[in-house]
Amino acid sequence: MEMMKAAVFEGPGRIALGRKPVPHAGPGEAIVKVTMTTICGTDVHILKGEYPVAPGLTVGHEPVGVIAELGAGVDGYTLGQRVVVGAITPCGQCHPCLEGHQAQCGGHAIGGWRFGNTIDGCQAEYVRVPFAMANLAPVPSGLSDEQVLMCPDIMSTGFGGAENGAIRIGDTVAVFAQGPIGLCATAGARLRGASRIIAVDTVPARLEMAKRLGADHVIDFRHTDPVEAILELTGGQGADVAIEALGTQQTFESCLRALRPGGTLSSLGVYSGKLSLPVDAFAAGLGDHKLITTLCPGGKHRMRRLMDIVSSGRVDLRPLVTHRFPLDRIEEAYELFANQRDGVLKVAIVP
Amino acid sequence: MEMMKAAVFEGPGRIALGRKPVPHAGPGEAIVKVTMTTICGTDVHILKGEYPVAPGLTVGHEPVGVIAELGAGVDGYTLGQRVVVGAITPCGQCHPCLEGHQAQCGGHAIGGWRFGNTIDGCQAEYVRVPFAMANLAPVPSGLSDEQVLMCPDIMSTGFGGAENGAIRIGDTVAVFAQGPIGLCATAGARLRGASRIIAVDTVPARLEMAKRLGADHVIDFRHTDPVEAILELTGGQGADVAIEALGTQQTFESCLRALRPGGTLSSLGVYSGKLSLPVDAFAAGLGDHKLITTLCPGGKHRMRRLMDIVSSGRVDLRPLVTHRFPLDRIEEAYELFANQRDGVLKVAIVP
Amino acid sequence: MEMMKAAVFEGPGRIALGRKPVPHAGPGEAIVKVTMTTICGTDVHILKGEYPVAPGLTVGHEPVGVIAELGAGVDGYTLGQRVVVGAITPCGQCHPCLEGHQAQCGGHAIGGWRFGNTIDGCQAEYVRVPFAMANLAPVPSGLSDEQVLMCPDIMSTGFGGAENGAIRIGDTVAVFAQGPIGLCATAGARLRGASRIIAVDTVPARLEMAKRLGADHVIDFRHTDPVEAILELTGGQGADVAIEALGTQQTFESCLRALRPGGTLSSLGVYSGKLSLPVDAFAAGLGDHKLITTLCPGGKHRMRRLMDIVSSGRVDLRPLVTHRFPLDRIEEAYELFANQRDGVLKVAIVP
Amino acid sequence: MEMMKAAVFEGPGRIALGRKPVPHAGPGEAIVKVTMTTICGTDVHILKGEYPVAPGLTVGHEPVGVIAELGAGVDGYTLGQRVVVGAITPCGQCHPCLEGHQAQCGGHAIGGWRFGNTIDGCQAEYVRVPFAMANLAPVPSGLSDEQVLMCPDIMSTGFGGAENGAIRIGDTVAVFAQGPIGLCATAGARLRGASRIIAVDTVPARLEMAKRLGADHVIDFRHTDPVEAILELTGGQGADVAIEALGTQQTFESCLRALRPGGTLSSLGVYSGKLSLPVDAFAAGLGDHKLITTLCPGGKHRMRRLMDIVSSGRVDLRPLVTHRFPLDRIEEAYELFANQRDGVLKVAIVP
Repeated sequence: MEMMKAAVFEGPGRIALGRKPVPHAGPGEAIVKVTMTTICGTDVHILKGEYPVAPGLTVGHEPVGVIAELGAGVDGYTLGQRVVVGAITPCGQCHPCLEGHQAQCGGHAIGGWRFGNTIDGCQAEYVRVPFAMANLAPVPSGLSDEQVLMCPDIMSTGFGGAENGAIRIGDTVAVFAQGPIGLCATAGARLRGASRIIAVDTVPARLEMAKRLGADHVIDFRHTDPVEAILELTGGQGADVAIEALGTQQTFESCLRALRPGGTLSSLGVYSGKLSLPVDAFAAGLGDHKLITTLCPGGKHRMRRLMDIVSSGRVDLRPLVTHRFPLDRIEEAYELFANQRDGVLKVAIVP
Repeated sequence: MEMMKAAVFEGPGRIALGRKPVPHAGPGEAIVKVTMTTICGTDVHILKGEYPVAPGLTVGHEPVGVIAELGAGVDGYTLGQRVVVGAITPCGQCHPCLEGHQAQCGGHAIGGWRFGNTIDGCQAEYVRVPFAMANLAPVPSGLSDEQVLMCPDIMSTGFGGAENGAIRIGDTVAVFAQGPIGLCATAGARLRGASRIIAVDTVPARLEMAKRLGADHVIDFRHTDPVEAILELTGGQGADVAIEALGTQQTFESCLRALRPGGTLSSLGVYSGKLSLPVDAFAAGLGDHKLITTLCPGGKHRMRRLMDIVSSGRVDLRPLVTHRFPLDRIEEAYELFANQRDGVLKVAIVP
Repeated sequence: MEMMKAAVFEGPGRIALGRKPVPHAGPGEAIVKVTMTTICGTDVHILKGEYPVAPGLTVGHEPVGVIAELGAGVDGYTLGQRVVVGAITPCGQCHPCLEGHQAQCGGHAIGGWRFGNTIDGCQAEYVRVPFAMANLAPVPSGLSDEQVLMCPDIMSTGFGGAENGAIRIGDTVAVFAQGPIGLCATAGARLRGASRIIAVDTVPARLEMAKRLGADHVIDFRHTDPVEAILELTGGQGADVAIEALGTQQTFESCLRALRPGGTLSSLGVYSGKLSLPVDAFAAGLGDHKLITTLCPGGKHRMRRLMDIVSSGRVDLRPLVTHRFPLDRIEEAYELFANQRDGVLKVAIVP
Repeated sequence: MEMMKAAVFEGPGRIALGRKPVPHAGPGEAIVKVTMTTICGTDVHILKGEYPVAPGLTVGHEPVGVIAELGAGVDGYTLGQRVVVGAITPCGQCHPCLEGHQAQCGGHAIGGWRFGNTIDGCQAEYVRVPFAMANLAPVPSGLSDEQVLMCPDIMSTGFGGAENGAIRIGDTVAVFAQGPIGLCATAGARLRGASRIIAVDTVPARLEMAKRLGADHVIDFRHTDPVEAILELTGGQGADVAIEALGTQQTFESCLRALRPGGTLSSLGVYSGKLSLPVDAFAAGLGDHKLITTLCPGGKHRMRRLMDIVSSGRVDLRPLVTHRFPLDRIEEAYELFANQRDGVLKVAIVP
């Protein structure tokens, strides 16, 4: 049995490089030889035991690679073809998928997230892709692995936050937190036609990157109250759309307080503990507010659209890749990324 | 100076019938001689001092009447014409109105609610209508005052909850609380094509009325856990849409727990105190949930649409009027309504 | 090789009962033993040679039956289970399917319509169902074949016309032509909350049925100009939504002329020859009109929603089945249906 | 009586500079002293007698200026304030306005277009603005007249074509004709997140400008069949959205032929004569196509959003102003513009 290297969750606090058999493709599946992947904030939650997965699981959900094997019934692809696969791998054929809720595939919450959650993920030399017909997205020639590395998750998620915020031409959009997903939300808000984008964070390098990706104003909330600043910038009205990209009470609540009546809070964060809705910021339920949550959209069509954006040059997320590691040194990469050392935004992992 | 009777808020705990000058119409305004009005749950909040209004204000925001005076620039109407005016009286010309947020008229939260909140209301013999061109809605001949009495507020609000829940043909909709607004939400869900409507309350007469207005299942939550019952009725999936029509933590939270991933919580309640979002019921923010709040839509066009529904016979809300009082006895009506005595749903007040 | 009876297109003017091998299920497919089916207007176009299909093809696209065989990878179903399959059988996994255009499956126009168009249809004892996971919809217990017989096509199409017309509570909706699809559009408009539904046709029995399914007004256009009548009923404004359910220049144009500015023409008809857009009725392109075309939505989720409507008792389409034939006499059924004899609306065919 | 200069339609073929009394503001109105305006293609239709207006009417509908007089009831503005007024001046208070169809104000098609159509326009020293509360939009400090000159009409219209096309991130959008409105549609498509914008015209300078405003590909249809080119660029699929910005059979039909199934034709052109819908390009009505027409959105809120876009630097339309004339020489400007001489795109007229 051929073996491969894989980053395996062994228990809270431990993700280690191990060896596993190279997987094979059943009907409707494909095997992708991973050429580049990355680590997500969610992987750090898994590492810390904050998000439960089964010990022994290979982690990682952002694969770029080449097709190594095609299962029965997977047509229209060729071995060796370069592909991206979304973090979310919908089946396309269940009730939620058929009505457009592909991230909730199978009918239970978050059901579409399989890689590194309910099946082996892609921080490995090979990854088995379920529902391959719905999920293998060929990479347009001319795009490097690094150019499309953000498509599977953070670009799809961040853009989704902008899309589901229903931004209109001329809107003021505030984006709370400028980690990788917040930065993509900022870029997404720019793509949707916001006329004023206000990015909030504390890390100067992230605020700088926010400007590069489209923010008109940046607010360091250690020095400036972001809600007051947003109200002032909007003549006391508040933002049309506020995007939450961190998952804390403070950012969630600030989003609400920064919104105008009738505004939309587009939430991307993963919350834990208790979350309260401040009744005053919410006009006691009478402010015609909307609160929309978004899980990363997946599937090959989504990936194609995102890669088309990359091809067009509209958005270039390569600057987010601040560090590069071979798969052999992935434990080191986790250490760096989990502790947010050395100005890390995203790491590229090359098997 | 001609005087009239009016129900005046004198301070917490006191709404009393008093005398005030009959108002006159400035430019763009109209005076309506009230022929019927009603008391709303919000009026009770005002009475109890829970929602602050200025002492001396005439309360009430649900007028049916005839035009008694037309100010300069108000064209296309005639004295004596029967009209309904919405509880919300948008100007139609400010920024929020022009982009469709008429209930947030003026740019501050709840700004479109003026009657009995920021200007004298209609529990009186006459009421001054601001922005009359946008708000006077002629009553189609053949409809009685009682038939259209619910249009200004609870029908508009309840239907709005169904509309903003984005109900689709074949949806399962749960409506939590079957007071007057919840009952109208139930009727609205029926109008929008839900295939299964589940109404939750504890009062048998209200559950009975819910069935009459379109509910397929009713749940008395004193005897049955509504979340469990809804999950069971939906094969474990949850409802597509849950409408909150009470404004409590319990109903709000139950709505979330009763929803399927990707579902919509359409909130109509007025919340006070603390409101928490249970993170588990919310899939930690990853369930593609939507939470939409709605303030009663107003304006003459809205009123026309609602009266067209009444004319069509699709919905008959007359059974909600359980008690009738002359304006002279409005204090008695408040006492009955505030204490929910004698199976009261709505009272008709006739000046 | 086991043989079965099937209605086969032999060439223009000839659909005949023949014999074919019973099909078997490949991976992802299922075989359904047909227990009831019907004939559609499109089948008549095929018969007449107006819509080209390959000679030798089994026709028919509205199957009700029981599962006779399940191919590899088709899980969650059991042999003998009663199912409905939509006329449109999306794969769920191609680009159009993944972005919600399931009727255009595969990326070419009308690609989702396979039965009796590009693969053997269901006017036969058995039918092979492609992409079974996306298309087999179990029939709720308690519903008869005849109750769900309209789900695969005309109910889905007619309702789709109402849904895509974006009908709102209180709308006036005109439905031009009250054949089976127009009648379902009438029922759909009722389900979506229109307050006034105006049905246009010439056949008294169809107008009668329109009333039964929800029309408030019926217009026999041999005696009354429908555009004038609609304008008169709406105080000169025109309808909010007009649904075209025939596919002729006259009905298409009348829809446009009957619309208010900003209104929506929802088109269900299949047009041939030349179709012109009367510039005057269209405000020279400046009337903010919308023209939306809809092909029958398919897939198992759609079927489930429609059957839920049937279960709820909201809509009962059994009266549309005016005639019943065994499969053996299907040529006779075609003769009756194609010539619209004997007041036929729909025929039930029982293999 | 104070007199002013005004460009007056005297009859087909004749727009001449004349003298008229300076207007005064009635209740709800304002007088704007025009500091800059421009000529629109529609004005040329009026000049040629192709669009009928009353002889004696002052033409022009794109005013930039300062407030010279405020009528009774117009609050929140000051004399001397710089403002822009949209070409469309909704009342905000009629039925269509209250349901969001402001361009169809008053309930008849194109009813919101008043300036230079049903009331005196702005190619004059002063213009009377109806419904001033809904229509006076203050110009942000720092913006010149020329920077905001396109807001009243072509920017609003062109962007409206992109907005109503419901462009999504990653869409391919084809824009047929790159006159001033088509160029704004190109800029609007870019603002909404299209990943590939294909601009079609024949004039090299316009194609050059299209690139500058966001087109990725330009097609000169004298040398290249645009439909074939679009199909080739999209791998045979067709565009997601096609915007028609000319108003001819050829461009309309090419839009349809260039669309993918399920795509949207967003139409901005003003059509005359006969317009036919090619049934084949339309999949006989079964292609799930949408055809949306848009009249220039107006009102002060729209103007504010557009000026915010200008302020943000996202779009700079100053290069469209190719020629400048004093009002005294407006006849010369008409001659140049009507004959499309000297590479003219838009002219600035300064009273």
